[in-house]
Amino acid sequence: MTHPFFNNTGPFKIDDILDYLDLLNTENYKSDLIYDVKDLSSAKINELTFFHSKKYSLIAAKTKATYCLTLKSLKDYLPKECKKIFVDNVLFSISQITSKFYPDAVNDNFDVTVKSINELKFKDKIQHGFNVLLGDNVTIGKNCSIGHNSIIEKNVVIGSNCSIGSNTIIRNTIIEDNVSILDGCVIGKKGFGFLPNSKKNLRYPHIGIVIIRENSEIGCGSTIDRGSMSNTVIGKNTFLDNQVHVGHNNKIGDNCIIAGQVGMAGSSILGNNVMIGGQAGISGHLKIGNNVQIAGGSGVIKDINDDAKVMGYPSKDLRQFLKDNK
Amino acid sequence: MTHPFFNNTGPFKIDDILDYLDLLNTENYKSDLIYDVKDLSSAKINELTFFHSKKYSLIAAKTKATYCLTLKSLKDYLPKECKKIFVDNVLFSISQITSKFYPDAVNDNFDVTVKSINELKFKDKIQHGFNVLLGDNVTIGKNCSIGHNSIIEKNVVIGSNCSIGSNTIIRNTIIEDNVSILDGCVIGKKGFGFLPNSKKNLRYPHIGIVIIRENSEIGCGSTIDRGSMSNTVIGKNTFLDNQVHVGHNNKIGDNCIIAGQVGMAGSSILGNNVMIGGQAGISGHLKIGNNVQIAGGSGVIKDINDDAKVMGYPSKDLRQFLKDNK
Amino acid sequence: MTHPFFNNTGPFKIDDILDYLDLLNTENYKSDLIYDVKDLSSAKINELTFFHSKKYSLIAAKTKATYCLTLKSLKDYLPKECKKIFVDNVLFSISQITSKFYPDAVNDNFDVTVKSINELKFKDKIQHGFNVLLGDNVTIGKNCSIGHNSIIEKNVVIGSNCSIGSNTIIRNTIIEDNVSILDGCVIGKKGFGFLPNSKKNLRYPHIGIVIIRENSEIGCGSTIDRGSMSNTVIGKNTFLDNQVHVGHNNKIGDNCIIAGQVGMAGSSILGNNVMIGGQAGISGHLKIGNNVQIAGGSGVIKDINDDAKVMGYPSKDLRQFLKDNK
Repeated sequence: MTHPFFNNTGPFKIDDILDYLDLLNTENYKSDLIYDVKDLSSAKINELTFFHSKKYSLIAAKTKATYCLTLKSLKDYLPKECKKIFVDNVLFSISQITSKFYPDAVNDNFDVTVKSINELKFKDKIQHGFNVLLGDNVTIGKNCSIGHNSIIEKNVVIGSNCSIGSNTIIRNTIIEDNVSILDGCVIGKKGFGFLPNSKKNLRYPHIGIVIIRENSEIGCGSTIDRGSMSNTVIGKNTFLDNQVHVGHNNKIGDNCIIAGQVGMAGSSILGNNVMIGGQAGISGHLKIGNNVQIAGGSGVIKDINDDAKVMGYPSKDLRQFLKDNK
Repeated sequence: MTHPFFNNTGPFKIDDILDYLDLLNTENYKSDLIYDVKDLSSAKINELTFFHSKKYSLIAAKTKATYCLTLKSLKDYLPKECKKIFVDNVLFSISQITSKFYPDAVNDNFDVTVKSINELKFKDKIQHGFNVLLGDNVTIGKNCSIGHNSIIEKNVVIGSNCSIGSNTIIRNTIIEDNVSILDGCVIGKKGFGFLPNSKKNLRYPHIGIVIIRENSEIGCGSTIDRGSMSNTVIGKNTFLDNQVHVGHNNKIGDNCIIAGQVGMAGSSILGNNVMIGGQAGISGHLKIGNNVQIAGGSGVIKDINDDAKVMGYPSKDLRQFLKDNK
Repeated sequence: MTHPFFNNTGPFKIDDILDYLDLLNTENYKSDLIYDVKDLSSAKINELTFFHSKKYSLIAAKTKATYCLTLKSLKDYLPKECKKIFVDNVLFSISQITSKFYPDAVNDNFDVTVKSINELKFKDKIQHGFNVLLGDNVTIGKNCSIGHNSIIEKNVVIGSNCSIGSNTIIRNTIIEDNVSILDGCVIGKKGFGFLPNSKKNLRYPHIGIVIIRENSEIGCGSTIDRGSMSNTVIGKNTFLDNQVHVGHNNKIGDNCIIAGQVGMAGSSILGNNVMIGGQAGISGHLKIGNNVQIAGGSGVIKDINDDAKVMGYPSKDLRQFLKDNK
């Protein structure tokens, strides 16, 4: 399986993977080739997944993965035909294996393949500023503009009619048509994910990407991190104001309006037509419904149903909040 | 009327404007020439303004504009001699007309007129870093300094004894004497203003500018957006810390102190000697009096009288807040 | 005493210092040479310190400074052998004297000594991007990487195995081994400290530096200001996410995890193993113990004991907060 941004150094034999994890092949797994690592829902035959918390048992039950790193206590939630590999620390082990498959997804050193746009075929096809750098194999559509000092790293895809500001850095990202990304953004860096360790935290690789759908706009100084296993997504016609932070794996729906300095921790899913006021914060792993309105400065720590209007920290029904705080 | 930053493509005949809005000239307005679009208070004879909410009826009553886009229900608030043009959606229509007058104020593509400072008369007059870019017709006073990779776009005015940091972008802005703008700022970009539309939001043009008065300082990584119809203003001797966001149309008074990561949504007016603690947020369209102190982390959603000290979200009297939260 | 970053223009005779402050030598102090200005705890013999608030009386009692700027009302807290110089406004006077010793620590104009890395010995020793600028006397260890458009100002020390992103500015900073600083950061600028004055605020010099200890990581778009008299410190193996603001004089312990958009006002001390959730704010001059957990969005305005978990604004015990907000 080819990855659009990171080089998959596999496949690896299951023997070698067990060996790498310091595990014995007690189940006598045959010398299968494992082609990729994926999350529970996207993994397919001949791929390896992981399952570390009962919270994901419904998804685990449907996984198509041939192998799964898991705990003994969780084995019965997985399909019978899925071959279990028991480890003590699932996240630590999957991090090791993913790093083996994708060694260049762990750190975010700058792209050494970039060249000045003046040396590339894009020189006369794109309206561009001074000191624009593009990496190998970048794709850019028609009628685009890229400002001064911006860096588009290797394999990034930009659609047609897009405007990229100045001093902006984009990597590991697919951008659809009619998207504006303003000045000073950093899009597609690794997320803030690691396994804490008192000597030296263990960074886990981020093999997800960022997808920015058509007609969207990203304000100045915003940061959008790529996903760990899944992708970070900005929906169609969704507008972000300045200094917004979107952590890894967040999926934002279509037609959302997100005001300045909003922060989203990670792995939350926003519906369509969501409006978020300035400086609001969204905790991790939440589900925010369609047409939700979140007042500025709110702190959201629970799921929110469709059509709700909330305010406060922790956020609650807007009317109730205003009544309680008269 | 010339605009310091955007090319006014008018005047236009009132016939053409009505035509452009798909309106019939039912009132038989003569073929007047309309020279500019302005807000209610600054519009003058032979100019067009707009009036969309009863909230502005006192200002509307005094407008000097010859024509006004408005709703039928609001017509009696306007002066008799002001000629009314009735539309269904005032903001949509004024946005269309403003875009017609100022087509280059809608988007913020990078300034294609910039050149390296080494090719300009400023080369030896200003202490400058590497890769400094200046647009056409930039004005810079004596004894200024501009850091590496900074971009000063066309027509920007910078006073004397100013220091601009590195990696900073300034456009559509007038800066008075003795101002420091630190590294990584974006000053004068369009505000976060648009008419939401489920297919593709409609950006309205931002023809206001940013004015930064003498002796002020803007911290690193701050963003100050220009106004839509009126200007965004930072008063004299007002200091902003790092990562502050000032949205469009905000007017901040003199001698204010605004700590790190504060955010101001837009169109609020701050008095003089206002102190705002870190991470506080100020909603839109508020009036904050003189000598007000806003504690760090507060969320201000109502007007504040002179000399008040507030804290909390929503903010209230500081003593009361501390008492309530013992 | 040599300072690693700012030129100490002393020593000065005590006579000259008194003269500079418009004070008479009423105590007949001899013509001692004063070699440096320091805070109460780090000042030594033949150095000048200052003591302006009873809050610091315990530290004052142990100062080794030969001279101390202070108020008459505070004189009895200081050691007998410490020679007192009485002034009306201690902070104003120490600011004047520090500016005399360190005139180049007041403003943060860009470093005029920087050159393109291509002209320096580092050209082939470091993996570097385009347009990398290094100031005089920069030290960089083995196996480091510096991204495009980054600026490392004079005298900065970078250890081995460090990765500096693109568009990042570093000054007045010592970085140990195995540190990652991501894109778009500004590290080591002067803090947000000045004496308010209705005509023109008086900037006081910042002669502290930033120290980033081994194995740490600083996220994109973060700002870490250098200290005024003491240093700003990021402990070992401490990770900061994107858009974090660390004000002057903060000292963060080891193994801390600080999520996106957190802000720390200044002069606070964090223990080891502290976890801070996204968008939380820490007021100035606080002491946060070891193993403390601060929930995202909290506002901390009081000291926190070891092992506490807090949430809310103002923050309180986490369980209590969740109970109160059911």
